[in-house]
Amino acid sequence: MNDNTARETQPSDRPAEHKGRILKLPLENLQTDREPHSYERWMIAKLMRMAGSPPVRFRLWNGDTVEPDDGPARFTIQLTDPKALLALVANPNLAFGDLYSAGRLQVPDGELPDLMECLYRHVHQARKQWPKWLEALWRNHAPRSTGLEEAKENIHHHYDLGNDFYSLWLDSAEMQYTCAYYESPDVTLEQAQLAKLEHVCRKLRLRPGMTVVEAGCGWGGLARYMARNYGVKVHAYNISKEQIAYARAEAKRQQLDQLIDYIEDDYRNIHGEYDAFVSIGMLEHVGKENYQALSDLIKRSLKPDGLALLHSIGRNRPMLMNAWIEKRIFPGAYPPSIGEFMGICEANDFSVIDVENLRLHYARTLAHWKERFDQNDDKVTALYDEHFTRAWRMYLSGSLAAFRAGSLQLFQVVFSHGDNNAIPQSRQDLYTFPATPEEV
Amino acid sequence: MNDNTARETQPSDRPAEHKGRILKLPLENLQTDREPHSYERWMIAKLMRMAGSPPVRFRLWNGDTVEPDDGPARFTIQLTDPKALLALVANPNLAFGDLYSAGRLQVPDGELPDLMECLYRHVHQARKQWPKWLEALWRNHAPRSTGLEEAKENIHHHYDLGNDFYSLWLDSAEMQYTCAYYESPDVTLEQAQLAKLEHVCRKLRLRPGMTVVEAGCGWGGLARYMARNYGVKVHAYNISKEQIAYARAEAKRQQLDQLIDYIEDDYRNIHGEYDAFVSIGMLEHVGKENYQALSDLIKRSLKPDGLALLHSIGRNRPMLMNAWIEKRIFPGAYPPSIGEFMGICEANDFSVIDVENLRLHYARTLAHWKERFDQNDDKVTALYDEHFTRAWRMYLSGSLAAFRAGSLQLFQVVFSHGDNNAIPQSRQDLYTFPATPEEV
Repeated sequence: MNDNTARETQPSDRPAEHKGRILKLPLENLQTDREPHSYERWMIAKLMRMAGSPPVRFRLWNGDTVEPDDGPARFTIQLTDPKALLALVANPNLAFGDLYSAGRLQVPDGELPDLMECLYRHVHQARKQWPKWLEALWRNHAPRSTGLEEAKENIHHHYDLGNDFYSLWLDSAEMQYTCAYYESPDVTLEQAQLAKLEHVCRKLRLRPGMTVVEAGCGWGGLARYMARNYGVKVHAYNISKEQIAYARAEAKRQQLDQLIDYIEDDYRNIHGEYDAFVSIGMLEHVGKENYQALSDLIKRSLKPDGLALLHSIGRNRPMLMNAWIEKRIFPGAYPPSIGEFMGICEANDFSVIDVENLRLHYARTLAHWKERFDQNDDKVTALYDEHFTRAWRMYLSGSLAAFRAGSLQLFQVVFSHGDNNAIPQSRQDLYTFPATPEEV
Repeated sequence: MNDNTARETQPSDRPAEHKGRILKLPLENLQTDREPHSYERWMIAKLMRMAGSPPVRFRLWNGDTVEPDDGPARFTIQLTDPKALLALVANPNLAFGDLYSAGRLQVPDGELPDLMECLYRHVHQARKQWPKWLEALWRNHAPRSTGLEEAKENIHHHYDLGNDFYSLWLDSAEMQYTCAYYESPDVTLEQAQLAKLEHVCRKLRLRPGMTVVEAGCGWGGLARYMARNYGVKVHAYNISKEQIAYARAEAKRQQLDQLIDYIEDDYRNIHGEYDAFVSIGMLEHVGKENYQALSDLIKRSLKPDGLALLHSIGRNRPMLMNAWIEKRIFPGAYPPSIGEFMGICEANDFSVIDVENLRLHYARTLAHWKERFDQNDDKVTALYDEHFTRAWRMYLSGSLAAFRAGSLQLFQVVFSHGDNNAIPQSRQDLYTFPATPEEV
């Protein structure tokens, strides 16, 4: 872990405090080649049974292995020290990611997403049988606050990591850091991201001259796409300083700045009335305690005939975010189930028009991201350090696995005021022409 | 009201007790031409203010009118006697339908659906301001039980009114008593009902040789459509004796009886595992207290790769069914909000794939039904009596108005087991060819 080298090549736009947030456990005196104790083997066997007996072999610090109970191993997890095992048993949700990031839990290259998917699927079944004390011991904690001040810090932590970093592995078309839309499996990430933007515009039934407000606009790609291809005026809100700076520069370069107003402010300060309300990948960061306020905001921001679209990571049922992701990667994150999502709609008598689950599209998106990330991991390490690179590889792999295993969903929900009869008659118009551009 | 004449022409397949269920208030000594008291005028003014001041004129028993507070009247409600006014003020949700059925509340021909829509829209806004005591006084009651025995009686009450009766105004193609699907506004009811069946089959991604279980199959049209057009085997459940008899005869006539098993039994007794679980228009009658059991049933009835589709009337937020509809027309009915619907999905970790709201399609369907009903109202009166005819005109008009006003929704929800990765990649395949047949 060449921490110092990384620091020297660090670009000026990356705030220094980010590194500190990816927690590093003390590394002194951990390596050991002593014989494993019998209770350590017992703990691994117990841990694996609690995880639903996945086909996983453990390789211990001295080279010894513990094979799975039933059937041959498909995956190998290597632990570099006895304390890693203790941490894993005490709180696997949090420790798995931390230990992997620190290099104390190792998985052969390429196996990580498949191993994670296998673990998710087994644990998902097994946890129904867990005793209460184990559920309590291993449970994920509640997400931290998403109040006005905290939200700024939460978003800063993740989205201000530097445009240089994200451009290493996001699409080059519009820097979309949300689920793409794959009309066919062989399109590129760039095509699929533009198809997503097109799909969203179609769902909103945009027409020239309409006004749109976007809550959480990322690097501003959707706003530019809407202005460029649909001739609408967009107010796009974001509290990430770096993303807004990028978005404004890009809109100016593309001569779209007359149509788009990028506003560096919290979505809660949106004002005015619009033909469409759209938010792509922000709801996960809003926090359930703010759903009523979000609902009220949409109520007053949407014209009588307007359509709203929220695109968000979600769950099949209410469930806390994985502890490691919430703690190390996405502070404050909470993906809602549709039932929880409906809190937003039912609070103001909105009428749900269309819900689409794009879970497997997000798995494909993440596979594309991870491929590019892996290709550029030396550059990421040069920007940050190896600990950071490993943490992000874990995050991308774990997310990919979660979408594949069905632990995470991706919902696009279209809704309107409850008494609006100008709603689309059907969804045929979304599918008349391909949404995917021929080339990018 | 020629009650006796109607009784004589009553077909043998109509159980006698039905007539009794459409309550008739005593009619003695009600007609009066006395001057209205000033407190009666005051009550009307108060009632209209509580209803949000709709543009409605009241014409009283002696010919006097009470004009709306603000602006000119668009509709006229005529009351034949002072007690009708008292009943209306005491419990408008229930009395409006009862008084209309009895001919004591009259509305000029053709105005009824528009008047109802106007009332729904005004009341919907106004009730937010109601004091608690008024909310309590006028509230709809909880639906009656939908236990195994009660469900039989509830369904018998409505669906066993006689195939002769329903064939007077339902489509002649497949006797569909649920929302049709209008790909364009100018198709016939028959075309739109067949398009609905096709749309549902496409959403289930049926392929030849698959097995399907249908809960609540009506006159069996969907099962026959699936067998005929998709070569699947169907187990179709229904507790309505008359509908099952019709369905079996029709399947035999069409030589589809090798592929379809119509089973006269409660959905709760479904057994076996199927590639698809489908239910069109039954969930409204299931009752919230049975959602967990329904969820468990779908869990065990659906193969790992299977898809489930529930099509149901719903709400934008939890709300009791209109008292008159629940009491006189649909005992036990409760249309759920999506949030409530999610109780079924979240209880067993199902993954919601697709939700479509076809509210305006149901308004169009009801307009078609009502048109045919009105054309045949003399035949309906001959089968039953005028009170019955007026009750059903009220029910069809009120439902049409509720779908137009946004008080009722129509949801089609597709879901699968949470860990199923054989889910459809997108919805493009639903829209490749028209679902509507060229002619019927």
